[in-house]
Amino acid sequence: MSEAAKTLDGWYCLHDFRAVDWTSWKMLSSDERQAAIYEFLGLVEKWNKTQADKKGSHALYTIVGQKADFMMMLLRPTMEELNELETEFNKTKLAEYTIPTSSYVSVVELSNYLPSDQDPYQSPEVLARLYPILPKAKHVCFYPMDKRRQGDDNWYMLPMEDRRSLMRSHGMIGRNYAGKVKQIITGSVGFDDYEWGVTLFSDDVLQFKKLVYEMRFDEVSARYGEFGSFFVGNILEEDRVEAFLYVN
Amino acid sequence: MSEAAKTLDGWYCLHDFRAVDWTSWKMLSSDERQAAIYEFLGLVEKWNKTQADKKGSHALYTIVGQKADFMMMLLRPTMEELNELETEFNKTKLAEYTIPTSSYVSVVELSNYLPSDQDPYQSPEVLARLYPILPKAKHVCFYPMDKRRQGDDNWYMLPMEDRRSLMRSHGMIGRNYAGKVKQIITGSVGFDDYEWGVTLFSDDVLQFKKLVYEMRFDEVSARYGEFGSFFVGNILEEDRVEAFLYVN
Amino acid sequence: MSEAAKTLDGWYCLHDFRAVDWTSWKMLSSDERQAAIYEFLGLVEKWNKTQADKKGSHALYTIVGQKADFMMMLLRPTMEELNELETEFNKTKLAEYTIPTSSYVSVVELSNYLPSDQDPYQSPEVLARLYPILPKAKHVCFYPMDKRRQGDDNWYMLPMEDRRSLMRSHGMIGRNYAGKVKQIITGSVGFDDYEWGVTLFSDDVLQFKKLVYEMRFDEVSARYGEFGSFFVGNILEEDRVEAFLYVN
Amino acid sequence: MSEAAKTLDGWYCLHDFRAVDWTSWKMLSSDERQAAIYEFLGLVEKWNKTQADKKGSHALYTIVGQKADFMMMLLRPTMEELNELETEFNKTKLAEYTIPTSSYVSVVELSNYLPSDQDPYQSPEVLARLYPILPKAKHVCFYPMDKRRQGDDNWYMLPMEDRRSLMRSHGMIGRNYAGKVKQIITGSVGFDDYEWGVTLFSDDVLQFKKLVYEMRFDEVSARYGEFGSFFVGNILEEDRVEAFLYVN
Amino acid sequence: MSEAAKTLDGWYCLHDFRAVDWTSWKMLSSDERQAAIYEFLGLVEKWNKTQADKKGSHALYTIVGQKADFMMMLLRPTMEELNELETEFNKTKLAEYTIPTSSYVSVVELSNYLPSDQDPYQSPEVLARLYPILPKAKHVCFYPMDKRRQGDDNWYMLPMEDRRSLMRSHGMIGRNYAGKVKQIITGSVGFDDYEWGVTLFSDDVLQFKKLVYEMRFDEVSARYGEFGSFFVGNILEEDRVEAFLYVN
Repeated sequence: MSEAAKTLDGWYCLHDFRAVDWTSWKMLSSDERQAAIYEFLGLVEKWNKTQADKKGSHALYTIVGQKADFMMMLLRPTMEELNELETEFNKTKLAEYTIPTSSYVSVVELSNYLPSDQDPYQSPEVLARLYPILPKAKHVCFYPMDKRRQGDDNWYMLPMEDRRSLMRSHGMIGRNYAGKVKQIITGSVGFDDYEWGVTLFSDDVLQFKKLVYEMRFDEVSARYGEFGSFFVGNILEEDRVEAFLYVN
Repeated sequence: MSEAAKTLDGWYCLHDFRAVDWTSWKMLSSDERQAAIYEFLGLVEKWNKTQADKKGSHALYTIVGQKADFMMMLLRPTMEELNELETEFNKTKLAEYTIPTSSYVSVVELSNYLPSDQDPYQSPEVLARLYPILPKAKHVCFYPMDKRRQGDDNWYMLPMEDRRSLMRSHGMIGRNYAGKVKQIITGSVGFDDYEWGVTLFSDDVLQFKKLVYEMRFDEVSARYGEFGSFFVGNILEEDRVEAFLYVN
Repeated sequence: MSEAAKTLDGWYCLHDFRAVDWTSWKMLSSDERQAAIYEFLGLVEKWNKTQADKKGSHALYTIVGQKADFMMMLLRPTMEELNELETEFNKTKLAEYTIPTSSYVSVVELSNYLPSDQDPYQSPEVLARLYPILPKAKHVCFYPMDKRRQGDDNWYMLPMEDRRSLMRSHGMIGRNYAGKVKQIITGSVGFDDYEWGVTLFSDDVLQFKKLVYEMRFDEVSARYGEFGSFFVGNILEEDRVEAFLYVN
Repeated sequence: MSEAAKTLDGWYCLHDFRAVDWTSWKMLSSDERQAAIYEFLGLVEKWNKTQADKKGSHALYTIVGQKADFMMMLLRPTMEELNELETEFNKTKLAEYTIPTSSYVSVVELSNYLPSDQDPYQSPEVLARLYPILPKAKHVCFYPMDKRRQGDDNWYMLPMEDRRSLMRSHGMIGRNYAGKVKQIITGSVGFDDYEWGVTLFSDDVLQFKKLVYEMRFDEVSARYGEFGSFFVGNILEEDRVEAFLYVN
Repeated sequence: MSEAAKTLDGWYCLHDFRAVDWTSWKMLSSDERQAAIYEFLGLVEKWNKTQADKKGSHALYTIVGQKADFMMMLLRPTMEELNELETEFNKTKLAEYTIPTSSYVSVVELSNYLPSDQDPYQSPEVLARLYPILPKAKHVCFYPMDKRRQGDDNWYMLPMEDRRSLMRSHGMIGRNYAGKVKQIITGSVGFDDYEWGVTLFSDDVLQFKKLVYEMRFDEVSARYGEFGSFFVGNILEEDRVEAFLYVN
């Protein structure tokens, strides 16, 4: 069996970033805005139910800076469900007042550098990581990344042993942040423009900087990491959606 | 005869990615939307007839994420026909409510690394690959790619023998996915911005990730592959078009 | 005299790529569309006259894929005339229904790697190449390119003798396509973002792929070529303009 | 304790660049424009109060060239407050007549290359740098930057000692500009697309060029610096906002 | 004194590129267009007066191709004046019918590779170069550029002596074009995205190509030059502005 096949894959994942078109949003009557918000909260209610049924999960965050106003992160067992959720949102009234600014398609993934002396699907810890209920952390950080293939710095030409050993020390750093930062790694080879997506959750936004910066000195990132855009945001609780979208 | 001339070329191919402008689409009356959908399905009916006559083929998929809402993949014997199909679609009512987001122009191609001890055009298997009827697989994956020409990693400076041997082991990986993933390779040198387009079909979307990831460790991809954007999607059967475009 | 000064330069050249804004075009009455088409054909008529007088040339092609709907290629003795033609088109009714998608400014150029034992301006063949009447070929291919200056692959650091010898074998490939592909090389150093534009004409669109692919294995392209976007299209004869733009 | 953890972090920082949509701005009545300006100045008044309370700081500059018409730079103790300020601005009348052109999210940072023989949070000088009141300098310069990780020029693979020594001589250059240029370094690893933002303030705009150019010859920049877009601007005092936005 | 500090700097410089929105321009009545043109010519009249007073200079050129329809190049003693001119133009009626497509902020600069045995500010020739009155040449060429910092081709790691000697031979090429091409070098380190802007003026547009191409073989460009977009254009005399903007 090839090493690639050893990867464990869980729920499919869509990160959907949206800017609000405040100018046209303000042109609605406050009743129309109210209706649009209620319709959206109705969708979220359905997502909550799916999550309660352990058939998926989701998160809603406002994003700092002009890259987006908010992010919906959606986890589902199939690619079709992601597509349906996305289209369902696109057909809402609220969506008419948002501008899509970025998205990312991936699948929750556990690395093939794990020890292989057990059946991972028997492990509750593994299952919890493959089918995670997203935490209600105060902050989120998302970025996509590649392993570099450039001149002498070509990850994919390294022997498996070297990669395994590099990943082990890389993982150590992450473990130092246990309890402070929750990481969800999603694989996107064949699905989107980078090879992985990294989603971090924390109640202390500074931990994102500390973690990513510390990892940058690790050889895996220093020599082999290529990073896309970084998004940082704050949790948007359902009961704050109305205030967030309130205009007078 | 030069090695380039040994490539076998079949039908011309257009991948046409479109976002739906849901906001303006909703402004139509439901009768107008109905008419637009019927006009589009009429086009598809003509494409079906062409396919039944073995004078081309096509596929229709919804795309996950913001890169597009749907993709039309069109195969035809001439570049003129592709151009006509494209213009015909552009003149439809539905097209007024779509936004072109990406396209790719290429031609179905069989590699010149094949053994050459037979006349390929006598082989039904070769003909079936040059003039393929696209499968009704549940999922599609498309990405364009180049062979790298960079410093010591310059594919085009390698001797033919080395390339042939590298491609042989590369092909092995693909063959392990036989029955699980159908690959259509199209050449686009001189036609579009990358050198090849790769379209994968599968009933199991995870196979795209496994295949592309496994190949990435193969020297052909690891040292010599440069990849463009990846698109992944779900089949849009004709009888689901109306539901996909339904808004109230 | 420096080697650069040995380049022979002919007519100035503008490639102008346009998408049609079909949605707004359809909003015109058919009389208005008719008037816009006639106005445009009147311009083409003037271009025809210029061409008959050997004071320039032009070509009109539809482009496959979303990069453009059509391309106007214009050759004139001065940069001012190109500018005037462009502005004249921009002021037409038709131009209001087009979206500029790409353009390229250059001048017809003969390489300074030619043998220099004769006065080139006395050669009818040279003059015909510097002031070409564009062929009515079925297909066109356009792409801009640079010579690479990167690490050990730096064209501009090679001795003149090496460059001349490399270009000679490079030219051989082109010559194998004589009668099948007509090439017009235009220089754009100081005029646009790449160093050269390459425009190919052929009645067999597959020859573009074969030619460009074969050249890619030649050291001049393999080590030293950097390519921009590729555009491919089909001839738009004047008597087909009305049909191309017809909507009901 | 890892070296990354030694970084000192202060206020969170948002650079928000905006173009004015002059055409639609002129369509307002002068009363409406007046009201929009007053509403905006009311926001600035609140920012002034926050600054007087030492709970944040801000700066307002017009930007030269088409990258933006003005920049708001906002410093606050939490990421949530930045997000709220941004959303509050987005909901104003003035915001309807601006176009977001660029933004940057970061946190005021003091380098971990400082000597560590004291508790930095006891130092008034350190605190003043972590929680700075932005100066009313005539000019501003902003650019984001990375430390390079490329082939032999890989900052993150250098031993700590080498980095410390390189940064020391780098810092010397900055110190030569003391009294002429005030620098605010903000860290953005995990927050935005580059690793740092550099904001310079000076009454002599030429000092930006001298400082950045001189640093470019320093090994830290020459070998290891990667720079994003540069923005340069002039202070927009509150009593000039009305004149800046005045149209007749 | 550091080498960077030896640079001589003159007037600040803004290149402002604009496309004309011909469609909306045509929607104006001819009286309104007339008024917009007169208002713009009034601005130019003020610029003329400034130039007559030797307190700045300016140039107006149409640009060939889709990058812009025209360019305003403005020189002034302070960054604030550039900003004011830009905002003043943005508030005109004509500006409502233009689309900003590119801009560049810099300052006229004389190289620090000049011999230093005299006080340059005593030299009328130096002063004329720092505070130039732009020529009424038929053609303009503009491009921004960097000195490369890449692997072994790192300009900023070269010893001063090597750079001085390389620049001397580089300057020779420029001098061969004396009388044919006027060059204005502007520095933009800290002001815009490249390190320098190069503006060339000539009555023979082909000289731009010859000069830039010849320089490309010089080691300074061949190994160390990185170039941005190239813009080429034709002079737009004030008495031709009305004809240029005339539509019926």
